[in-house]
Amino acid sequence: MEFEESGIGEECGVFGCVAAGEWPTQLEVGQILTLGLVALQHRGQESAGIVTSNGSSPPAYVTLKGMGLVNSAFKAEDLLKLRHGNLGIGHTRYSTTGISELQNCQPFVVDTLHGRIAVAHNGELVNAAALRKKVMRHGVGLSTCSDSELITQLLALTPPMEEADAPDWVARIKNLMTETPTSYSLLIMYKDVIYAVRDPYGNRPLSIGRMVPISKLHSSGGGEGDTEGWVISSESCSFQSIGAKYYREVQPGEIVQVSKYGVKSLCVVPRPEGEPPAFCIFEYVYFARPDSIFEGQMVYTVRQRCGHQLAIEAPTEADVVSTVPESATPAALGYAQESGLPYVEVLCKNRYVGRTFIQPNTRLRQLGVAKKFGALTDNFAGKRVVLIDDSIVRGNTISPIIKLLKEAGATEVHIRVASPPIRFPCYMGINIPTKEELIANKPEFTDIAGYIGATSVRYLSVQGLVAAVQGGTASFGGKELEMISPSNNGIRRLGHCTACLTGKYPVELEW
Amino acid sequence: MEFEESGIGEECGVFGCVAAGEWPTQLEVGQILTLGLVALQHRGQESAGIVTSNGSSPPAYVTLKGMGLVNSAFKAEDLLKLRHGNLGIGHTRYSTTGISELQNCQPFVVDTLHGRIAVAHNGELVNAAALRKKVMRHGVGLSTCSDSELITQLLALTPPMEEADAPDWVARIKNLMTETPTSYSLLIMYKDVIYAVRDPYGNRPLSIGRMVPISKLHSSGGGEGDTEGWVISSESCSFQSIGAKYYREVQPGEIVQVSKYGVKSLCVVPRPEGEPPAFCIFEYVYFARPDSIFEGQMVYTVRQRCGHQLAIEAPTEADVVSTVPESATPAALGYAQESGLPYVEVLCKNRYVGRTFIQPNTRLRQLGVAKKFGALTDNFAGKRVVLIDDSIVRGNTISPIIKLLKEAGATEVHIRVASPPIRFPCYMGINIPTKEELIANKPEFTDIAGYIGATSVRYLSVQGLVAAVQGGTASFGGKELEMISPSNNGIRRLGHCTACLTGKYPVELEW
Amino acid sequence: MEFEESGIGEECGVFGCVAAGEWPTQLEVGQILTLGLVALQHRGQESAGIVTSNGSSPPAYVTLKGMGLVNSAFKAEDLLKLRHGNLGIGHTRYSTTGISELQNCQPFVVDTLHGRIAVAHNGELVNAAALRKKVMRHGVGLSTCSDSELITQLLALTPPMEEADAPDWVARIKNLMTETPTSYSLLIMYKDVIYAVRDPYGNRPLSIGRMVPISKLHSSGGGEGDTEGWVISSESCSFQSIGAKYYREVQPGEIVQVSKYGVKSLCVVPRPEGEPPAFCIFEYVYFARPDSIFEGQMVYTVRQRCGHQLAIEAPTEADVVSTVPESATPAALGYAQESGLPYVEVLCKNRYVGRTFIQPNTRLRQLGVAKKFGALTDNFAGKRVVLIDDSIVRGNTISPIIKLLKEAGATEVHIRVASPPIRFPCYMGINIPTKEELIANKPEFTDIAGYIGATSVRYLSVQGLVAAVQGGTASFGGKELEMISPSNNGIRRLGHCTACLTGKYPVELEW
Amino acid sequence: MEFEESGIGEECGVFGCVAAGEWPTQLEVGQILTLGLVALQHRGQESAGIVTSNGSSPPAYVTLKGMGLVNSAFKAEDLLKLRHGNLGIGHTRYSTTGISELQNCQPFVVDTLHGRIAVAHNGELVNAAALRKKVMRHGVGLSTCSDSELITQLLALTPPMEEADAPDWVARIKNLMTETPTSYSLLIMYKDVIYAVRDPYGNRPLSIGRMVPISKLHSSGGGEGDTEGWVISSESCSFQSIGAKYYREVQPGEIVQVSKYGVKSLCVVPRPEGEPPAFCIFEYVYFARPDSIFEGQMVYTVRQRCGHQLAIEAPTEADVVSTVPESATPAALGYAQESGLPYVEVLCKNRYVGRTFIQPNTRLRQLGVAKKFGALTDNFAGKRVVLIDDSIVRGNTISPIIKLLKEAGATEVHIRVASPPIRFPCYMGINIPTKEELIANKPEFTDIAGYIGATSVRYLSVQGLVAAVQGGTASFGGKELEMISPSNNGIRRLGHCTACLTGKYPVELEW
Repeated sequence: MEFEESGIGEECGVFGCVAAGEWPTQLEVGQILTLGLVALQHRGQESAGIVTSNGSSPPAYVTLKGMGLVNSAFKAEDLLKLRHGNLGIGHTRYSTTGISELQNCQPFVVDTLHGRIAVAHNGELVNAAALRKKVMRHGVGLSTCSDSELITQLLALTPPMEEADAPDWVARIKNLMTETPTSYSLLIMYKDVIYAVRDPYGNRPLSIGRMVPISKLHSSGGGEGDTEGWVISSESCSFQSIGAKYYREVQPGEIVQVSKYGVKSLCVVPRPEGEPPAFCIFEYVYFARPDSIFEGQMVYTVRQRCGHQLAIEAPTEADVVSTVPESATPAALGYAQESGLPYVEVLCKNRYVGRTFIQPNTRLRQLGVAKKFGALTDNFAGKRVVLIDDSIVRGNTISPIIKLLKEAGATEVHIRVASPPIRFPCYMGINIPTKEELIANKPEFTDIAGYIGATSVRYLSVQGLVAAVQGGTASFGGKELEMISPSNNGIRRLGHCTACLTGKYPVELEW
Repeated sequence: MEFEESGIGEECGVFGCVAAGEWPTQLEVGQILTLGLVALQHRGQESAGIVTSNGSSPPAYVTLKGMGLVNSAFKAEDLLKLRHGNLGIGHTRYSTTGISELQNCQPFVVDTLHGRIAVAHNGELVNAAALRKKVMRHGVGLSTCSDSELITQLLALTPPMEEADAPDWVARIKNLMTETPTSYSLLIMYKDVIYAVRDPYGNRPLSIGRMVPISKLHSSGGGEGDTEGWVISSESCSFQSIGAKYYREVQPGEIVQVSKYGVKSLCVVPRPEGEPPAFCIFEYVYFARPDSIFEGQMVYTVRQRCGHQLAIEAPTEADVVSTVPESATPAALGYAQESGLPYVEVLCKNRYVGRTFIQPNTRLRQLGVAKKFGALTDNFAGKRVVLIDDSIVRGNTISPIIKLLKEAGATEVHIRVASPPIRFPCYMGINIPTKEELIANKPEFTDIAGYIGATSVRYLSVQGLVAAVQGGTASFGGKELEMISPSNNGIRRLGHCTACLTGKYPVELEW
Repeated sequence: MEFEESGIGEECGVFGCVAAGEWPTQLEVGQILTLGLVALQHRGQESAGIVTSNGSSPPAYVTLKGMGLVNSAFKAEDLLKLRHGNLGIGHTRYSTTGISELQNCQPFVVDTLHGRIAVAHNGELVNAAALRKKVMRHGVGLSTCSDSELITQLLALTPPMEEADAPDWVARIKNLMTETPTSYSLLIMYKDVIYAVRDPYGNRPLSIGRMVPISKLHSSGGGEGDTEGWVISSESCSFQSIGAKYYREVQPGEIVQVSKYGVKSLCVVPRPEGEPPAFCIFEYVYFARPDSIFEGQMVYTVRQRCGHQLAIEAPTEADVVSTVPESATPAALGYAQESGLPYVEVLCKNRYVGRTFIQPNTRLRQLGVAKKFGALTDNFAGKRVVLIDDSIVRGNTISPIIKLLKEAGATEVHIRVASPPIRFPCYMGINIPTKEELIANKPEFTDIAGYIGATSVRYLSVQGLVAAVQGGTASFGGKELEMISPSNNGIRRLGHCTACLTGKYPVELEW
Repeated sequence: MEFEESGIGEECGVFGCVAAGEWPTQLEVGQILTLGLVALQHRGQESAGIVTSNGSSPPAYVTLKGMGLVNSAFKAEDLLKLRHGNLGIGHTRYSTTGISELQNCQPFVVDTLHGRIAVAHNGELVNAAALRKKVMRHGVGLSTCSDSELITQLLALTPPMEEADAPDWVARIKNLMTETPTSYSLLIMYKDVIYAVRDPYGNRPLSIGRMVPISKLHSSGGGEGDTEGWVISSESCSFQSIGAKYYREVQPGEIVQVSKYGVKSLCVVPRPEGEPPAFCIFEYVYFARPDSIFEGQMVYTVRQRCGHQLAIEAPTEADVVSTVPESATPAALGYAQESGLPYVEVLCKNRYVGRTFIQPNTRLRQLGVAKKFGALTDNFAGKRVVLIDDSIVRGNTISPIIKLLKEAGATEVHIRVASPPIRFPCYMGINIPTKEELIANKPEFTDIAGYIGATSVRYLSVQGLVAAVQGGTASFGGKELEMISPSNNGIRRLGHCTACLTGKYPVELEW
């Protein structure tokens, strides 16, 4: 299921780039930012923004913002304005509030006593309401409802005593991190530096890549001496499209300084004693692009493992295995492999169906999501089909697909869902329908198969999902876990946020 | 390979709809036309047009035209203007001439002595230049370079003697068909009738669907009594998205009259003695949506058969089989099945990459098409990959993909192409690069594997392709062939145009 | 009264330019055409078009068309495409039919047997319906309802016997002129020549200007040797804005060939024996820009004479004379001068009021046209005002102005109209409300002053208007008149079309 | 001279409206705001904004902003969103900084501890830089460079001790007024109240109007009982276009509370002892619409008096008097009246000339401003012309006009300027070219006539201008002046800011 159908939405993608050396640098920072945002487009299609700095003192900033996809938000002539930038940050936004205005578009730029800063944010501050009140009590007016403005004002406001002349941004960022535990992955640009920050729970992803000459991109060489610059991105999938090598993740709680001189870890703000990290498990299930790497493993591989696990937990007597294109395909291939059933394609998707101007209450409404899919009849007519989906949120999109398959000749349609039922709201940046809208909380859920018209319905267990994500024998609950395998480059997968599945939130919520 | 990369382009899609009964009919003709065109969007993304008629006498016509995709070419308020239409025709256009102007947008509408007619055309008249001269010699000025205008003027111009008061459009259409042998699938709307016409060689496809109540859409019942209207489309894939049942194809040379009273075959204009039909074989290979049905078989199935045949003709020592997403996937699955090698995904496509504003001569240019793909490393690192593509045209898009896979860890990359090399131009509506640009005509073709960086390269044979299309033991050349199986509803697949592969054109070319 | 209020509309403006010498010429033909059209913008604001030719053989034509004002219809990058043009024609269009589509936008360009021609037309063919039928009977389909397409097809269609190889366009144009008597001022471009044509009645204006170096623009010198090119325009007002000298008018019935070699009169097609010319008298009253020159006299001066004449015909006991800004100002100044009453301004116009989004039936509707005007109270409070308007068409725009003045303190408001009442439709290109809508045909006209709330209302007589236009002692009716003065460069003002005032049409109407 | 030519620019226009009674009120507040802004369009064409409140608790605010003219900045469907507003404020902006971005568009809206406020500002804070520093030192980040944001943050920041629960906005506004002496006319909306504020020097105008039923608009009755609401506007010219009666001006230093209960003067913040007011004298000369009323007199009348005074100070031997259309027309008519010379029109303006796409260094550039004007030759050929302009700033726009007139036949062209030379910059909201660009500061000024090509040039004296503005015998300098006449409704014209003419600024400038 694609985002638009499921009703789930990720908030944002952030992307930054710093060129090594002095201007004119070897990198076209503005173009790298643009391409980087395009690669994060699946994390937000509502608006896009870029701010570049030429890194001098005082720095000249250039800001571009626009509604819609990156390619339509910026015009070619606008992008030319970015060409003197030595570094910059960008943002793609998904509207969680329904307020779709240019002024909510990030990055947010403000003038402070110490000069101009720019901030791009992915996540949602769990105590935003209290922080807004605090800031306003100090006498600050807030002109948007975005967390990003709130963060800039919190950074501007806190005046640590030690500051004499130069601002101590690291102290200010640390201070911000004590004010709010989660969830945020931040890029903060000040003059010639980008601070890359991940909240102590590591709820949102953030990775660093190294720009090398294209010729050295895939060679095992390309040592530090060849570095042309650095990029920071919500997901590593963007590295490939701009010619960067994967370097490492920003760790939970870490503040990393990225400048033309290189990458420097400044500090790691710890979680409260005994608390595990809480990286959003739905990044694996659903949001991230399959070629992104989190915690040393490829998202595609995790999804495939979910399919394997699902085949073990919920085997089926059937003839073929297939997918709801195209996010469920890795899980479907995993299920097919584990079960030994043949994998076939049963649906053909029309990529051009978009906002079509169909008036309500008409004959065409009844066709529902089927307008988007063509049945590949020959592949399943007269057969029993196992159809893998990655999640079922409201239950109203899978239903017409099952009907389509049955009427086109499938004798049975078994739905196997490669993630557990979603039952709880998310307060950390994911746009989930209200509790009442979630199919798993409705009375109909007791007969979900009957409700959606399937022959049978089975979900992956929470334990199964966690095992697929964390590897082998893992269990959840604060206890440190062993590495999944020696091949994961020493990165350990400890704890993940499963709040939307279990109701166990990583921090207590203050309202 | 997608169209934009390959440099091949189909010209157009046509779609028509007639509601049964009197206005207000049960069908929303304007909306059905819109959705129908969206389903044909892969046949032309440059411009779109719709003309509806209210079918009264004199009829009121409404015309909408716009540049770009259907969803952006028409505004919601414009579509409201179509709501009094009882019938209509539409068109999506791919620019073959590079002249991208609204005035070339179809359908073409003209006032004639007998009233207004509208024409939508898919194909290319092989003798267009001579016909233009003929029309102009008669004293007609032509305001566009489109065949569609030429056809309307030819229809308007010819005054058959028998015409007393009422125009004899069928005689005029027949006359047109004697003037030009191919290639055209036409929809001609006059008052309350649509004439659906396919050239005697059947070079371009045209299918008829029957609108039934949504509730009876998939039941085997839904008899004639339930008919709510009729649709005619370049491809049957559009029927599913509007709730129509597949009815039949328009036969080569046939003129079909579609009106509120039903579908009526008026005549079949024959080919010259002994000449076989010449349905474009590349519709199967490349252009059509996989869920479309031509000559009684699903396009997806033919492509899968091509994969089987390719595995027989060009077996490979390798570890995994994969696809260049996503048009080559059926062939890849067929190859995997026949060869017994496991099918995996190796590339993840970023759907948002479009016209990006990258200035020439920069570092980013070197990344080429790789900007569009992410490598799913885990699935092939350290392995020998068979990569299936549906065609190689210029050879400059597959090359960076191979590089990407090799550098990401593939030990060998064997390219298997599910169609024969393209060597000749098409004069019947397909936009193929010049002979010089085709890789198969270049000196480098002798070492194509070395040129594109593959471990090995093999193509499907022309005989293999024809066999996959026409079934079992078929051979090409005018001889009538046996039906492929009893299940094809009595439709025989006789001859196909393979001119771009073999240089044997169905008609002699006059220039 | 401005056009939008009065409900009267002129159809079009045409403009052409030919550079002397070879390319690259000293003139920027594309830019001159653009500026020329801007100067004719008052003759049509609905759409604009330009076609240029590089004059070579075969010529390369470039066409630009767009909706709205010239400055918004063309983008800067589009205008660059015109830079290789050696000659070109342009058009601004006022929609008389309400069909506001790009395809009706002129110039109309067609390919004929002899090559491409482009046509721009101002006027309306009185026998258009019959001509359309004739053309269609020949077997030609017409794709628009514009006279311009009709004219191109008539030119393309007629094949005079004498034509051997080269087309005889002059014979074709003459033939066209025998087919239709009026009304048209035409620019026809073919390869490197523009034919400037005015119908035998001279119903629509057409003037020729000579481009000289800016430095010689106003010197009495600037002989033929300095000629940089030629322009042809509906009105001479455009000459000043592009740096051209007034040269002469195209005479009624004349075909003038304009090329890089100069201006050459080819022939003058005569009117039927004894019939006078019929230049539209409303060009003087209303349509033309006041700085344009027709028949040797400045439009402003004629309007001022109308004011003088009106003061003689309709004197008033009053304190001040004023104008409805700003088209009536010359007449108001003339009236003030003749009457000896002081001229003051009473209304201030807000130029920014345009299409405002006021919903119907609201309080604000009642304010009517007064939203557009501010009363300059000090200038007339407690005084008797003579308010000059140039025409009253429907009577519903002057009424709220009178109310405004009275309520702001005018003790009396006497309306004096500087033209006679409009009573009849125009079939020659002017968009006049239907007979029923014209105030002069309504019962209320017997008490027009009471109806519109004025203290008194008086109109200029037809004789008075004709005298003001034709000079001294003139009378109307086919008799040749003496020149108005020796200073008019030998141009005689003979007959004028007063059909909308008198019902006497210059040609019999065929319907 | 129009603004765009002169290089002078006013910053902004502000407009507010409060409906009497409860919702649904008799007034369409959103539409009144739109029309009110259209009437203030001459004060700013760069962007427009409107914020409405429904006045309930907590209030629902709706914000619209857009670039360009009011009519293009807002779409019809957007205006519908305003329909639940009971009150609102709007703003039209002229860019003084060259930064033309939507985010600088006013009104500025912020959430404060006490709820949301919206602010619209006309003027420029003389100590903005110091105030920005102060605010930022408090820890506030500023996201724009607009004074309006600065004002909102100053209002939000100051926490007067007395505030218990409810915010004391009046105390906060008073505090703001002690922080900055000038220049500002402000509208501050909070819940169901608009505070209308004018700085103690009264540098920028602000007037109040009363909405009455249209039927009672011009009657002397229409007592308080008929009040439908209230409007506040930079200029009273907007009252006429929305059907409001002129009520009174906001006094220098006054805070007026406008709500559904009526208009209430809350306090008047005094100037330092002995300092006169400093209303910008250029509002009379140049910026304001002629039908606006300041200090009890109509702007048109003042301009006419300037013309009278100019004729006394600078009489001319000549044949005719004329104007550079159209802002200088009242002065020209005054000059003509006083001098006894006849008034004629010499120039006809093409309203459609806008941003034309003329490439640099071409023949057409040389035509300069003359592209915009047509010479009405008959009115002045062979005559000596006195041409009145309202001001000469850079001297490069009047020059080509003089050339045009001379070359078209004027024997002499005497320039008479209805204001003194501008010599000094403005720090209070007027965009004046740099000192070096002002013609009055250049060496050429000693022979200004020669420089611009005029026969002679004379300016109005500062004393003459002040007398025309303040009446009879007035002199400037802190001394209270007598009323100009009994007819001015008791409003006294005391002091005016003439800093740009004299260099005497009303307050000391801190930089």
